[in-house]
Parts: sequence; C-alpha cells; structure tokens
Amino acid sequence: MIIPIFFSLSFLVSSTNAADFCVGDLNGPVGPAGYSCKKTVTVNDFVYSGLAATGNTSNLIKAAVTPAFSAQFPGVNGLGISIARLDLAVGGVIPMHTHPGASELILVMHGTLLAGFMSSDSKSVYSKTLNEGDIMVFPRGLLHFQINAGKTQSVAFVSFNSADPGIQIFHLSMFANDLPTGVIAKTTFLDTAQIKKLKGVLGGTG
Amino acid sequence: MIIPIFFSLSFLVSSTNAADFCVGDLNGPVGPAGYSCKKTVTVNDFVYSGLAATGNTSNLIKAAVTPAFSAQFPGVNGLGISIARLDLAVGGVIPMHTHPGASELILVMHGTLLAGFMSSDSKSVYSKTLNEGDIMVFPRGLLHFQINAGKTQSVAFVSFNSADPGIQIFHLSMFANDLPTGVIAKTTFLDTAQIKKLKGVLGGTG
Amino acid sequence: MIIPIFFSLSFLVSSTNAADFCVGDLNGPVGPAGYSCKKTVTVNDFVYSGLAATGNTSNLIKAAVTPAFSAQFPGVNGLGISIARLDLAVGGVIPMHTHPGASELILVMHGTLLAGFMSSDSKSVYSKTLNEGDIMVFPRGLLHFQINAGKTQSVAFVSFNSADPGIQIFHLSMFANDLPTGVIAKTTFLDTAQIKKLKGVLGGTG
Amino acid sequence: MIIPIFFSLSFLVSSTNAADFCVGDLNGPVGPAGYSCKKTVTVNDFVYSGLAATGNTSNLIKAAVTPAFSAQFPGVNGLGISIARLDLAVGGVIPMHTHPGASELILVMHGTLLAGFMSSDSKSVYSKTLNEGDIMVFPRGLLHFQINAGKTQSVAFVSFNSADPGIQIFHLSMFANDLPTGVIAKTTFLDTAQIKKLKGVLGGTG
Amino acid sequence: MIIPIFFSLSFLVSSTNAADFCVGDLNGPVGPAGYSCKKTVTVNDFVYSGLAATGNTSNLIKAAVTPAFSAQFPGVNGLGISIARLDLAVGGVIPMHTHPGASELILVMHGTLLAGFMSSDSKSVYSKTLNEGDIMVFPRGLLHFQINAGKTQSVAFVSFNSADPGIQIFHLSMFANDLPTGVIAKTTFLDTAQIKKLKGVLGGTG
Amino acid sequence: MIIPIFFSLSFLVSSTNAADFCVGDLNGPVGPAGYSCKKTVTVNDFVYSGLAATGNTSNLIKAAVTPAFSAQFPGVNGLGISIARLDLAVGGVIPMHTHPGASELILVMHGTLLAGFMSSDSKSVYSKTLNEGDIMVFPRGLLHFQINAGKTQSVAFVSFNSADPGIQIFHLSMFANDLPTGVIAKTTFLDTAQIKKLKGVLGGTG
Repeated sequence: MIIPIFFSLSFLVSSTNAADFCVGDLNGPVGPAGYSCKKTVTVNDFVYSGLAATGNTSNLIKAAVTPAFSAQFPGVNGLGISIARLDLAVGGVIPMHTHPGASELILVMHGTLLAGFMSSDSKSVYSKTLNEGDIMVFPRGLLHFQINAGKTQSVAFVSFNSADPGIQIFHLSMFANDLPTGVIAKTTFLDTAQIKKLKGVLGGTG
Repeated sequence: MIIPIFFSLSFLVSSTNAADFCVGDLNGPVGPAGYSCKKTVTVNDFVYSGLAATGNTSNLIKAAVTPAFSAQFPGVNGLGISIARLDLAVGGVIPMHTHPGASELILVMHGTLLAGFMSSDSKSVYSKTLNEGDIMVFPRGLLHFQINAGKTQSVAFVSFNSADPGIQIFHLSMFANDLPTGVIAKTTFLDTAQIKKLKGVLGGTG
Repeated sequence: MIIPIFFSLSFLVSSTNAADFCVGDLNGPVGPAGYSCKKTVTVNDFVYSGLAATGNTSNLIKAAVTPAFSAQFPGVNGLGISIARLDLAVGGVIPMHTHPGASELILVMHGTLLAGFMSSDSKSVYSKTLNEGDIMVFPRGLLHFQINAGKTQSVAFVSFNSADPGIQIFHLSMFANDLPTGVIAKTTFLDTAQIKKLKGVLGGTG
Repeated sequence: MIIPIFFSLSFLVSSTNAADFCVGDLNGPVGPAGYSCKKTVTVNDFVYSGLAATGNTSNLIKAAVTPAFSAQFPGVNGLGISIARLDLAVGGVIPMHTHPGASELILVMHGTLLAGFMSSDSKSVYSKTLNEGDIMVFPRGLLHFQINAGKTQSVAFVSFNSADPGIQIFHLSMFANDLPTGVIAKTTFLDTAQIKKLKGVLGGTG
Repeated sequence: MIIPIFFSLSFLVSSTNAADFCVGDLNGPVGPAGYSCKKTVTVNDFVYSGLAATGNTSNLIKAAVTPAFSAQFPGVNGLGISIARLDLAVGGVIPMHTHPGASELILVMHGTLLAGFMSSDSKSVYSKTLNEGDIMVFPRGLLHFQINAGKTQSVAFVSFNSADPGIQIFHLSMFANDLPTGVIAKTTFLDTAQIKKLKGVLGGTG
Repeated sequence: MIIPIFFSLSFLVSSTNAADFCVGDLNGPVGPAGYSCKKTVTVNDFVYSGLAATGNTSNLIKAAVTPAFSAQFPGVNGLGISIARLDLAVGGVIPMHTHPGASELILVMHGTLLAGFMSSDSKSVYSKTLNEGDIMVFPRGLLHFQINAGKTQSVAFVSFNSADPGIQIFHLSMFANDLPTGVIAKTTFLDTAQIKKLKGVLGGTG
C-alpha cells in the first residue's frame, strides 16, 4: 500500500527550498545580503555559459575580465561564491586592483602570468611567475595584479568567496572620474602633470 | 514633575525593534538571510505549540519529523536557531540524512535511540545508544541517523543553529524523484535492480 | 582486483577531519573562536549524559540551570550550538538574565512556565504561560525570565546558537560582587537600602 | 583613439555597486540583514551631522544618548558599524544597559567618566575612571554603565560593530512598561515597594 | 631630508600582517577557525603547483579528486576559499557526495560532464550536461555528482567558499567502514544483500 | 540560611568568561580569528590611553595615524571592533588607502576635513567637507582619503568593525618596497619617471 508512504514523505519534507538556495531576482528588492529570491527556478539558473568565450582584448590593457558574479549569474546569490575569466593577450595586464572584502584564488589555464600582491605592512611584495596549472591566493582586500609574462595569449580563472566581490581598479578610480587633480596629488604623491595626462587618456575630469 | 522624564525616555529608546528580532512575513519578499520582517508582532509570534502533539508514525519509517523552522514558526526568522520533534514508534527510524550547513543537537525525551554520524574521512563512524536525558551533537552537514533501539515509543527533540536548516534525506533524494537509474547506479555503486525496486516503493521515475 | 580501489579511495579522502568538527581540548590554548581541537576523539566526545539528572533546586531560587556548553560538553566547541536543562521546583524561578549574543529557544518538558522577554524599545513585554510541549524563542541578548507557574516540579530545555552563550544574571551581576552601592543606585534608580539588603543576602560588598 | 579604451573600461566594471554598500531605504522591506537598498545615492547618504549638537540633558538621568544607527543614518545599513554620542551633565549617568549582540568602544571627548561592565561570571566588575582621550571596550551583550565622575559637562562617543546595536536599559525594561510587579519581584529579588515606587516614577503599570 | 619621512612611514604601518592573512602552521595548534598562523612566510606559501598534473584515474571510479584545501595548501587557511581538480577518464564518475557547509562552483576545462544536485525537498533534481567553459554552482551541503558524459578524458576545477570544505562521499561513508549492515538497511532502505556486496568491494565490515 | 544560596549561585554561573571576551595574549599562538586569550585579566586590559596624545605630524604627510587595534590594545581581540586617532596639521593628509574587509566610520573632533571614497564602479566619487561633529562612513575595502581642508590642526577618530582592520596605503604599497618599476608602470599606467621619482622619495627599490 503506497498511500501512507507518501503521507510520511510529504511530512518529512515540509521545509522549503529556501534553506538550500536563493537564486537572485534581479528585479526584486536588494538587501545587504543580496538579491531577493526568485520564486521558480530550473537547472538553467545554476548553469552559466558566459565564461566559455574568449574575452575581447582589443583595448588599452590588452586584457578582459568576464565576471560571473550575482548580477551576471544570479544562481550564486546568497551562496558566497563566484568566479571570473581573465583573458590576457601578449603584453596584456590586469591592472592593480582590489576586491573589497573577498579573497581570490587564481588558476592559470593557458600561458604564463606574473602575479603578485602587497600586504598591508607596505614592505612586502609577494609576486611570482605562474605557469599552467598553478594556483595562487590573494588575501581579501589587498592590492594585486596579473601580467601576461609569456609570448602567447593567456587565460586564467579567478574564484571569490563572495557572490559579488566587486572590483576596484586603481587607475580607473583615480583617473576615470571627477576626483579633482589636486586631491589626487595630495593623497597619492603623484605629480600634477602625471595625473592630468592619465585623466586625459582615461576620460577623467577635474 | 513627570513630563521631562518622558522626554528623556523616548529619547533614549529611539532605536527601533529591528535590532532585536525579525519575525518572518511569509508573504513578503525572501532574501538570502531569510524572510522579510512582519511589521506588527505579539507574543504569539514567539510561541509555538505545534510540537506538543505526537507525530503520526503510521508510515513507512514508523517515525515522524515535526519541524519548527522559520516556515512553520516565523518567530525564529533571522535568529539562527530552530527545533524539531522526532517521534519513533517501535522499529521506527529517522533515515540517513544531512542538514546543509547546520549543526544538530539531539535530546532524548523518552525511550532509547541508536544514533550516529559518519565523518568525512569515510573511515569513522560515531554511533551510540542514547537513553532518556542523553544529548548528542551531529556536526554541520554530516550524514547521520536515529533508530528506535528500544521496545517503546520514543520521542526526541533536535535543535539547530539555523532558522531553516533543511533536511536532505538520502533515500528520498535518490529514489523519490526523476534522477535516472543509470545516473544513480554510476554515482552510488548500487545495483540497477536495487534502484528500480526502491524507485517503485518511493514513487520515483527514471 | 581490489588494491587499486583502495589507492583511489585514500586519494579521495585526503582532506582531514578538521573540516568536520573540533572537539575542545580544555587544556589547550583558547582563542576567540573557542578551544583548540583535541587530536583524538571517540563517540563519547559527542555524547553527554549530564543533563539526565534533575538539578538540585534546594536553593534561593528553587531552581537549577545545568549547562551543556563547551566547557562541560567540549563536543560542541566550534559548532555554534549548545543546550541547558532547567529545573524549577514549585515556586521556582530562573531570574532575569541575558545571554550575550546568543538566541535561546525553550522547550517545556513538564509543568507550566510563565516566560517572557522585553524588547529594547522598553515599552514592550512579550510574556506568556507555556505548557508541556510549547516552545518559545528569546531573541539574542534580550532580558528574559522563566517562572514555574504551576503546582508541580517543572523541567525545560533551552537551546542556544552558540557553543558558549554565557549567562548574565541581573541580581548576581548587581548584588553578588563588589560593584559599589552608590554606582548601583545611580545606574539603576534602586534605593540604597534595597541595594544593601540584597548585597547582604547575595554576598556582595561595597 | 579613445573609444576602444572605454569599451574595455565599461567591460571591466560590469559588477554593480551592490558589492560596495547598501544605503537603507527606510520605506522598503526590512529583512534580518537590515533595510533594503536605496536605488540612488549621493555623498549625503554617507555623511551625518546629527551628532554635532549637544544632547538635551534636562531630564531624570541628566544625560542624553544621540544615536547614529541605521534608522537615523541609513548609510551604515549593511556595513556592520555605527556610533552614538553621549552627553552627561554634572551628575549625569548612562544607566545600566546592554546592546544585544554588539560590542561597544567608548572614547571620552571631554570630562571624566566612571565606566564599567560586569562579566557573566557575576563575580567580576571591570570599572575605571576614564579621562579625556581614554578608550574602553565593553564586550558584546554585557551590562555596562557610564557616570559623569567630574565637575564639568562630559561628552563621549561610543562605536558599535553593528549598524543597529539596540539599547536595552535595565530600569526602563523593568519599570516603564506593564511587566507585572509580582513577576519583577520574583525574577529580580527586589522588594515590591521598591518596584512600585519606580513604576510610579517611570510610568510603568502592573 | 628623508629621515622624518621614514619615521612617519613606520608609524603609519604599525598594524601587523595578521590583518591580512594567516598561512597555516600544520604543526601548531588547530582551532575552530583553522590552523594557527606561520610566523614567517614567503610568496611560495601563497602559490601551489599540485593541481598542474593529471590525477591518477586508474581506479574504481576512473576519476581523481586532487584537493588544494588548507591541509595541502596552507596559504588559504583562514581565507575562506579553496579549490580542487577533477580528472575523469572516459566512463569516470565523481560519486554522489556533499561538502558540509561549503558551496561549490565547477568549471569544465576539457570534455563533457553530466552534473547535478538534489535540493532538500527530495522532489527536485537539477542536472545538466556541461561543456567546456560552462560553470555550475552546487549550493552548500547538498548531494551532487559529476559524470564524464563524453568520449574523452575530462578535466574540471571546483572552487569552494571554505578553506577546508571536506568531502563526504556517500558510498564510502556507507560501505567502507564498520557501520553495521543492519543499521544501513534500516536507514537507507537498501537490501542486505546489496549492502554486503558493496561492503565487500569497498572494504567495509559489520 | 545563606549557605544553600551560594551553592545555587556558583551552580548558575558555571560557564566560564570565555563566552564574554578574549583579551589577546600577544605571545601566544595566533589563528585566523585572532590572538589566543590571556588567562588572567584586569580592567586595565579593557582601557587604553594611547590615543590621548597628539600624534607627531612632523613628517611628509603632516599627519599621523595612531591605531588602537588588537596589537596595541589587546582588549579588542575577538570583539570585532577597534579605533584609531588621526592628527592632521595644516596641509596634512591621510593618503589614499583601504582597510581590507573592514568598514570605517570617521568622527571629526577638531577642524575641517575633506574626506571621500570611490565606489568600485570607478565612475563615482563620494567626497564632502566635514566639520566638527560630522561623521562619515567608508564602506568596507574601498579606497578613501582625508585631507585637512582648514587652517588649523585637525583631529578625528576612525572606528572599524574589526579588531585588526589593517591599513593598505597606496603610495607606500607601490613605492616603498621592491615592486619592480616595470610592473608598477604596466599595472598603474604611471610613467616610469614618476615611479622612479617616488621610489626615491619613499625608499623603494627595483
């Protein structure tokens, strides 16, 4: 007799899926913990193919960052994890940047990268040439960089322990907005001419 | 003169109740941290009588799990705690299961239970017969079980450090849905005949 | 051929048990996250029988709190969960107290309790008479109490979402130490005579 | 040629601001992690001038607490930090209180304060006279107080590691609401006459 | 004049590196938050080459898991992140397993995988065929699996939001230790003959 | 009869102080959660006078940061809170910097400051002139700065929601160590001459 079995089953599973995941509803309210949860989900909410293609490296940095954060891949919302793809053409560079509050782990897929970070004692630089299959960890919030150190296109993947780690890129934060030249000069010790030159290149004003 | 006193009082308590609790509004938006907060609450939001009655054990497992998670008892929403009642008839069993990300603490109220968990080194089984008044802790996320090991009805209460710990029951996750038999066979080493037999009993397809 | 199988098995399980639990070594160093981990454990580290016996209620409050926190039950160390037993004789009371930073969930086993908490807006009291099988949640850090409201011995169990929730009991913190009477008077608005009387009863000085 | 540069820039910064902050929308839904996020923000959302003025100390405690919690200063919503200003006239006192789940750090700006907290072992009082420039930390959830110990108006600032720490003031939680006198007497050991007197002063009933 | 500059510099950086990272000292005390910190570190503590080589898939599952958790790669200790390499020969499978409390994000490097997880409502299976460059997220603590669904060797990398996520593999936890056959039968509904057969293959007793 | 009272008291307070605080033992083992706990503490462990004196601003930046982090003030260890004093002479500046993973709240005590931060979208600058009594919050991990914008010495206090927030100062991380000039040029777009000039001033090599 099967019916009593099903009674017991449905009884046992009376807690909702909310315990399991919270696929982000990009149109719903957002709170400090992330997007609100979509009501209906399928497996496609948990799979993303946006990192399969090579990023366009025809730009100033000869590199591209393709993120799969909660805004692009809402399946990670609330799960505290995300990933991004790095493509670096020959001579390409992922400029000096930080992720506010998230640690990063890089995995080199193709090519050779020079990667490094600086600790907050200002004295210490931790940098090394990474080859295919190497991994390196960049502790949360510290300045770090990656440079294509080889003679071929390079590909790497960077994981984060946050669904939305953010990327704060130093030269863009300084030179691509309206932060006044005088303020930059005082707070970075850079020369005014240097600042104005880079604001010109990067579209900044002030 | 009382009036200036009240001025000072209302001044001192200008922070809202939001610091204290967030009773779940089951009809409002849900986010990674739980339900949104009900606007008006009474003491009845913090009290629940749903665990007072014996669960119905007339089923396949001769047992019942009665949860007081945030879906049943919205007062625990956001507080990181919940509880459930276990009833096990003679011969009853709470099958092999996990709670994703929550630790569990069992307290035996009546009867005798054999309880145990396996650590992730695969080599170690931690199981013991528990009597009235005994407690046992099951570390977060590990497979565990409880079996009525006595000759009387047994009652236990299990606490969790999550308002919504979830319950993933192995045999239901395998045999009560449409996970294909071939996939189950490959990933569990179970024989196809065994799988098909249990899918038949538990209502699974595929 | 079985041997290659075992090679693969030991390979798959190369992560240690540290991922699973950290039974407290009460003699090792203690840090902000709890005790350091015992190196060798058995099932007995995860089971505790210290709550099975009725607490001794022959005292001023006609009640007893028997904790199974990490100091008494090191198996919960690092797992963010613990429990305690409350025994209240007729007329017994668990006095006004808080648990710094932990939420509490009470389950009434025997008898009838009047339980309540005050929210931090000072205006609101949430109290109710609880019967056998009732549960009530006390949000983290708020003042609360339990009183035997019936004509029989009462037993309850209180769960916490911390392995070491602490108990700060108001009358002991005020009157059982050397906090000066003048300081107490100024900060609580109690009369000096009242304070001195209770210091006499509870062994306080100053 | 500037255009390809901007393509790369906008590509690099495709993650949203949600990674950075979540200024509280006081009219939106509230969840366990705080208010939902305002959609448009300016620098004024991150600056608050409400602590610049001296609080009104013409009241029973000759003191004032001016909070900049998430309800008053929504810029801290989700950031786990807040601050409040304390003004104490000569003879002023911040009465015995707790912050549920938040630690506090006091900085004395002007004057002399006697400050202290009690640990949960009931035996230990940690109190000291603080002068201008001194800081003291009050661990999360513990009873503490501050008294103007000098002959001049005193000012201090208290920081919290929560955007909404709450304030539970003992005498208000006891005597300014409808918690019955008999319950207070049983749970605090205070005399009925004392309780009724303070209920009269503080506007309590019951 | 350079000397006063250096005074100011050393003053500004008086906080230690402990804020930045805590490379695990595998020989020091272990606590709930991980290993204690090595006193001296170099860049080599943050780089690991152990995932560069193909794992040995000459085993029962025709697959290998090569972890870079804190025990193998102490640089991730305390940083809440780690990674592992999966190699699956043709016909290979990563069996049904969970990671207690950690979410996982898989990236397919080579080949084609069928991957899936079951949510805790028992009804829902989320599985899909993944191709090179695809990613999929497996929410914390849920049962999941990966199967080589193609005709070539497959490689994938799995990231975790924990430095020590653990791996609990169902068939090993059931059949490779001394959990008694009768207990397994009662808690999984598997037939005794099936259990004994797998215990024989996998080295279990009882 | 007083004796039974004391039995009950000591029974009620059987949990240790470890629930309350963990004053750092700077000579003991350090773990991811901070220093291990001192065994014996006094009130002096919770009070610090090191912020009372004006910092020495006779340096390149005409400013001083005086921290009370866990290394200087071990009482905050494990409590998730700390503070620092900023002194800025006329023309003084706290250079562009981040705190990895901690949010900051500034309170202006004396003088006038221009303060600001950049969000991670690179486009947005949030800066404002702050006067005495103003507060401003700098979200976790984002670049920010403070400049004395007035004609007098300025003093401010900055609170953090971490006992060890760290300070990563951009110009020191770039120019005061051995990070090669070529790497800096590629990752920041600064000119080589600019880099070499600042390395000369700040003592960097490479």
